[in-house]
Amino acid sequence: MTAARITEVDVIDIRFPTSRELDGSDAMNPDPDYSAAYVILRTDAGDGLEGHAFAFTIGRGNDVQAAAIAALRDHVVGLSAEAVCADPGSLSRALVGDSQLRWLGPEKGVMHMAIGAVVNAVWDLAAKRAGRPVWKLLTDSEPEWLADQVDYRYIEDALTREEAVALLRKGKDGSAGRELRLLANGYPAYTTSPGWLGYSDDKVVRLAERAVADGFTQIKLKVGADLADDVRRMRAARAAVGPDVRIAVDANQRWNVAEAVEWTNALAEYAPYWIEEPTSPDDILGHATVRRGVAPVKVATGEHVHNRVVFKQLLQAEAIDVLQIDAARVGGVNENLAILLLAAKYGVPVCPHAGGVGLCELVRHLSMFDYVALTGTTEDRLIEYVDHLHEHFKDPVAIVNGHYVAPTAPGFSSEMHATSIEAYRHPGGAFWVADAAGLTEPREGTNR
Amino acid sequence: MTAARITEVDVIDIRFPTSRELDGSDAMNPDPDYSAAYVILRTDAGDGLEGHAFAFTIGRGNDVQAAAIAALRDHVVGLSAEAVCADPGSLSRALVGDSQLRWLGPEKGVMHMAIGAVVNAVWDLAAKRAGRPVWKLLTDSEPEWLADQVDYRYIEDALTREEAVALLRKGKDGSAGRELRLLANGYPAYTTSPGWLGYSDDKVVRLAERAVADGFTQIKLKVGADLADDVRRMRAARAAVGPDVRIAVDANQRWNVAEAVEWTNALAEYAPYWIEEPTSPDDILGHATVRRGVAPVKVATGEHVHNRVVFKQLLQAEAIDVLQIDAARVGGVNENLAILLLAAKYGVPVCPHAGGVGLCELVRHLSMFDYVALTGTTEDRLIEYVDHLHEHFKDPVAIVNGHYVAPTAPGFSSEMHATSIEAYRHPGGAFWVADAAGLTEPREGTNR
Repeated sequence: MTAARITEVDVIDIRFPTSRELDGSDAMNPDPDYSAAYVILRTDAGDGLEGHAFAFTIGRGNDVQAAAIAALRDHVVGLSAEAVCADPGSLSRALVGDSQLRWLGPEKGVMHMAIGAVVNAVWDLAAKRAGRPVWKLLTDSEPEWLADQVDYRYIEDALTREEAVALLRKGKDGSAGRELRLLANGYPAYTTSPGWLGYSDDKVVRLAERAVADGFTQIKLKVGADLADDVRRMRAARAAVGPDVRIAVDANQRWNVAEAVEWTNALAEYAPYWIEEPTSPDDILGHATVRRGVAPVKVATGEHVHNRVVFKQLLQAEAIDVLQIDAARVGGVNENLAILLLAAKYGVPVCPHAGGVGLCELVRHLSMFDYVALTGTTEDRLIEYVDHLHEHFKDPVAIVNGHYVAPTAPGFSSEMHATSIEAYRHPGGAFWVADAAGLTEPREGTNR
Repeated sequence: MTAARITEVDVIDIRFPTSRELDGSDAMNPDPDYSAAYVILRTDAGDGLEGHAFAFTIGRGNDVQAAAIAALRDHVVGLSAEAVCADPGSLSRALVGDSQLRWLGPEKGVMHMAIGAVVNAVWDLAAKRAGRPVWKLLTDSEPEWLADQVDYRYIEDALTREEAVALLRKGKDGSAGRELRLLANGYPAYTTSPGWLGYSDDKVVRLAERAVADGFTQIKLKVGADLADDVRRMRAARAAVGPDVRIAVDANQRWNVAEAVEWTNALAEYAPYWIEEPTSPDDILGHATVRRGVAPVKVATGEHVHNRVVFKQLLQAEAIDVLQIDAARVGGVNENLAILLLAAKYGVPVCPHAGGVGLCELVRHLSMFDYVALTGTTEDRLIEYVDHLHEHFKDPVAIVNGHYVAPTAPGFSSEMHATSIEAYRHPGGAFWVADAAGLTEPREGTNR
């Protein structure tokens, strides 16, 4: 076992035909085909364990994303499986620090998401080898080891290693009790399923009512294409769920700064809880202006924020009320640890982005760690839930009474069924071959 | 001619073995292999004109960059050559706005540089069809048309179309006289050739002395690996050039914020003119802190700034004294027009990044436009010059008395010799085939 090496990095372009249902439609993304640039790390340990993970994309360009993951192969093949699983942070730093690949970012876009996929695959492998889910691997770790998993380059002015250790030590107080509560009650979720822009008002109302009946205390609507439509849908949704259920709204970067303030205030009558992605994810100062202009409506962003340096500034500039990590946008678990620590230090709640392909499966691990062993609270914290494509995963999410159930299977819950991988490989998988031959039909919804 | 279509988008992975000379070595990039993900737009016009351009990378990952350009093919093939050349801005917006590809950025990294390459190839084609160099095509354009070439999304809080038109109208005043002066005297340059980190002190001194003899009034040294080395090299360079030649220093993102302030101040005795890339290019607030901490040394950045939204904030936050555009990092000429307009509005001088492969060739067009028809001045403005790889270009830069000569050949000067493309194609070109067979040797310098 100690001599085991990583022997292969398989990369697979997997695409699901979600655009046919308008699942996932919003003001900027009218027709996404949810896709995964999927990676499998294989070893010669003989234990049958593999590390699985992926970068999430929405269709075109998934091949580019896969090529970026393949470009990391030489950094990974031949590494000691034991060493890399004992310290994913060193690999993370080596990948981010490759001086030639760094030019393609640095630490952003296609190349950084590729690093995130590989790093997350290492965490999947490490957790499987440890026989524990990733959230439990994290909560069981020593504060000093966890603090060493973070790259402080470019964030030391906001968070030092010493501060990280102190936060993590404090997080250990009472963690055993919180772990039991997590296992008993799960972690709060909110649902976006009612609110896709392509849905009719009737469907929005029907799904919003069902969400409340299912125990959700917050839903989310997509906005930003047409103000009159947004007002009408928001009024209908508010009438359907009543005054006590939070309704977040999400503009998916549709607006300029001034427009974001005006549009959000035009919806104020229906008490939106937060406005999400009001403008460019790069516009730190713009978000700060929007926040000042729309209070008491909160400002949320993060699913397209490309690294810890931008999150650092969003916090320093008091630009956001809600920080939305994404499991597959930044450089993997290690960078998300940095971001969770930054949020904890600045006292801003983290409400992860999820949905897509497998993002719910992954990100719950990070929030559950945050609750058990970092901030110690779920107050004003919820994980997004979207009822998409879970059937393709071996360890899919389960929602009970509006809460994510804590996963107990070893790993990062990032592994798809072999049958799904084979069917949806693009362009050679069975579904796509049949599709090209005209043998598939639009279906009404998956899992809905 | 009016019916001509774009018929092909050829993408070629071209790499030069620059790492063997330590040309281009700095604190973050010890061994770059300067490379180009090269694109050729072909038409059926029958006039023999093609649009050439490229994304610049430093070696590994150039294949990923090439794949990203190829992913844009379907947006371009079949377009009217006339229409796209008459309005590159519409294509630029269509490429940036592809909702699925947008997920891979948005507007950053590999995918955005790919868009920049395609957009720049359109400008090359447009200028060739117009029989003028790009700088002249720009200076001859109407303010309203130029203003329409800019995408104001996410920058309207800093620059409106109306403000852009006003700046461009003002730029027309006296432009005929400035054009004559430009053709007679060229545009000021500074040189980085003396200062690569891998060079010995003797080589630094020898090249610095030669730079002054050649008429340069500013040189640049790489710093950031070792403070004692930097102090020694800076002292030697200052002694070599005397007090009146500006010496810029460049840390290539090596530092955290506090470290940047300390290190720069430790070099203050030798009067560095600017500190370039002191920290992460994403750290707008960090640059503002550094600027306050190192004055009167100026702060410069931009070669890795990924789009106009970040430049906007660097200006809004008063984080930089010198703005460094790059011809091949952002979304092409159109986004660089936006950035030049922002800089003009905020009164910050633009000193472009150049070097690499062909960056000098391209970016001079943008500064020359800025001088003739936008800001109307070259005060405190210089274009970086590095004596690398120009021999591969059909319309290479020429430097006379420390000034870039204005190019007069039609196009964007972005076209390589067919023999260079063929020899340095990776991995199948003649050089790389010979190299793989052990038949190439390290050479002392190209063009030095």
